[in-house]
Amino acid sequence: MTNFRLNIEYDGSRFSGWQKQGNTDNTIQGKLENVLNKMTGEDIEIHGSGRTDAGVHALGQVANFKSNTNMNTDEILDYLNEYLPLDIRVKSVEIAAPRFHARLNACSKHYRYTIDNGRVANVFMRKYMTRSTDTYNLDAMKKAADFLIGEHDFKSFCDNKRMKKSTVRTIEKIDISYNDGILTMDFYGNGFLYHMVRILTGTLLNVGTGKINPDDIPDIIDAKSREAAGFTAPPQGLMLVEVTY
Amino acid sequence: MTNFRLNIEYDGSRFSGWQKQGNTDNTIQGKLENVLNKMTGEDIEIHGSGRTDAGVHALGQVANFKSNTNMNTDEILDYLNEYLPLDIRVKSVEIAAPRFHARLNACSKHYRYTIDNGRVANVFMRKYMTRSTDTYNLDAMKKAADFLIGEHDFKSFCDNKRMKKSTVRTIEKIDISYNDGILTMDFYGNGFLYHMVRILTGTLLNVGTGKINPDDIPDIIDAKSREAAGFTAPPQGLMLVEVTY
Repeated sequence: MTNFRLNIEYDGSRFSGWQKQGNTDNTIQGKLENVLNKMTGEDIEIHGSGRTDAGVHALGQVANFKSNTNMNTDEILDYLNEYLPLDIRVKSVEIAAPRFHARLNACSKHYRYTIDNGRVANVFMRKYMTRSTDTYNLDAMKKAADFLIGEHDFKSFCDNKRMKKSTVRTIEKIDISYNDGILTMDFYGNGFLYHMVRILTGTLLNVGTGKINPDDIPDIIDAKSREAAGFTAPPQGLMLVEVTY
Repeated sequence: MTNFRLNIEYDGSRFSGWQKQGNTDNTIQGKLENVLNKMTGEDIEIHGSGRTDAGVHALGQVANFKSNTNMNTDEILDYLNEYLPLDIRVKSVEIAAPRFHARLNACSKHYRYTIDNGRVANVFMRKYMTRSTDTYNLDAMKKAADFLIGEHDFKSFCDNKRMKKSTVRTIEKIDISYNDGILTMDFYGNGFLYHMVRILTGTLLNVGTGKINPDDIPDIIDAKSREAAGFTAPPQGLMLVEVTY
């Protein structure tokens, strides 16, 4: 068995997210496995670095799968891109170490949330940004972001109420920038809980508009309650940029 | 009557082009006039700088219309963007000189044709580029482009066989560049005939793949026959970038 590593780009707009959902399958994982099964005649299981929600995009999702195929990596790349829909592209196929696992070995993830905040909405990137005409106080947002950096229990930023595993995660960095009416928030961390980036985004946006005081962020973290944090920002503005190992 | 000038951005993918077509109206001009009629209660006629074909996009189409409205330019901008579909945005509304006419006064137009020529197709810009995995000889294309610069009778590059008006136009500049698998052709000229940019593009692509010798371009121009030139490149890779006055 060879262990293959894929780097995948997708427009999540019309998919029900990364993770396979039984037979009613409109997921990125499902589309990939279907093509891999057809290609190999095997029953392939593909492991993504993590799930992305319905409507969330990826510039660099990483996944691995094991197969007995005799095809080389170039042939696999071409086969996958021939049979996958145009809103999913495999950017590279590499042979990975036998024990490489895209989820278990992921060290850090970079997510980007983009808000189209210009006077007039952008036409060409409209499906990859969330539109808002609110006025944001960037200094307040940056101050709030500083409180989120480091290792914390992010239970307040998790939409899975029945989460039994640890909700402790480390956020390495949050970059907030504003150029030509585009507000960009870059999140780097060792792992993110269900909806965590979208709740972090919604909370920072609430700080930006003055609904939440940046100095309240430590209390919001300490509350360990979803109700304490801000809203869950919509999926279309979110992009999984890169996974590092 | 006040003469208003609009700067308009649109994703042409789902439209039948700029120019209004009677009642079965799925055109950019038609959408704009419908909203303007509703806004003013008048029967507005809007003049674009030129038609764009079905499927062609614009970053900066210019148009003008006359109205007795008492609304100011900010109010018009907001009204239009509230009622237009999201794939058409009005980027600015200005008061123009009474005799300003978007088509008759246009001095120069800049069109861009983009080919996605990378090993793997781009997901996010897929609707705004034409996909091709051919290998292009850029030096040959640039040599061919040099022959096209200047004032010529471009009848060979016009898909309107019944064209009765002059087919003489001036191409000021053609820039051909290649970065990260993206082939970009920028055309600047005082006016373009029906399908002219797409036929220029198809001809240059045919030169790039060796089907046409760059030294044959003067003969192709001289032939004054559509059959002499290359193919009509598909619309989705074409963008009207800017109109100058």
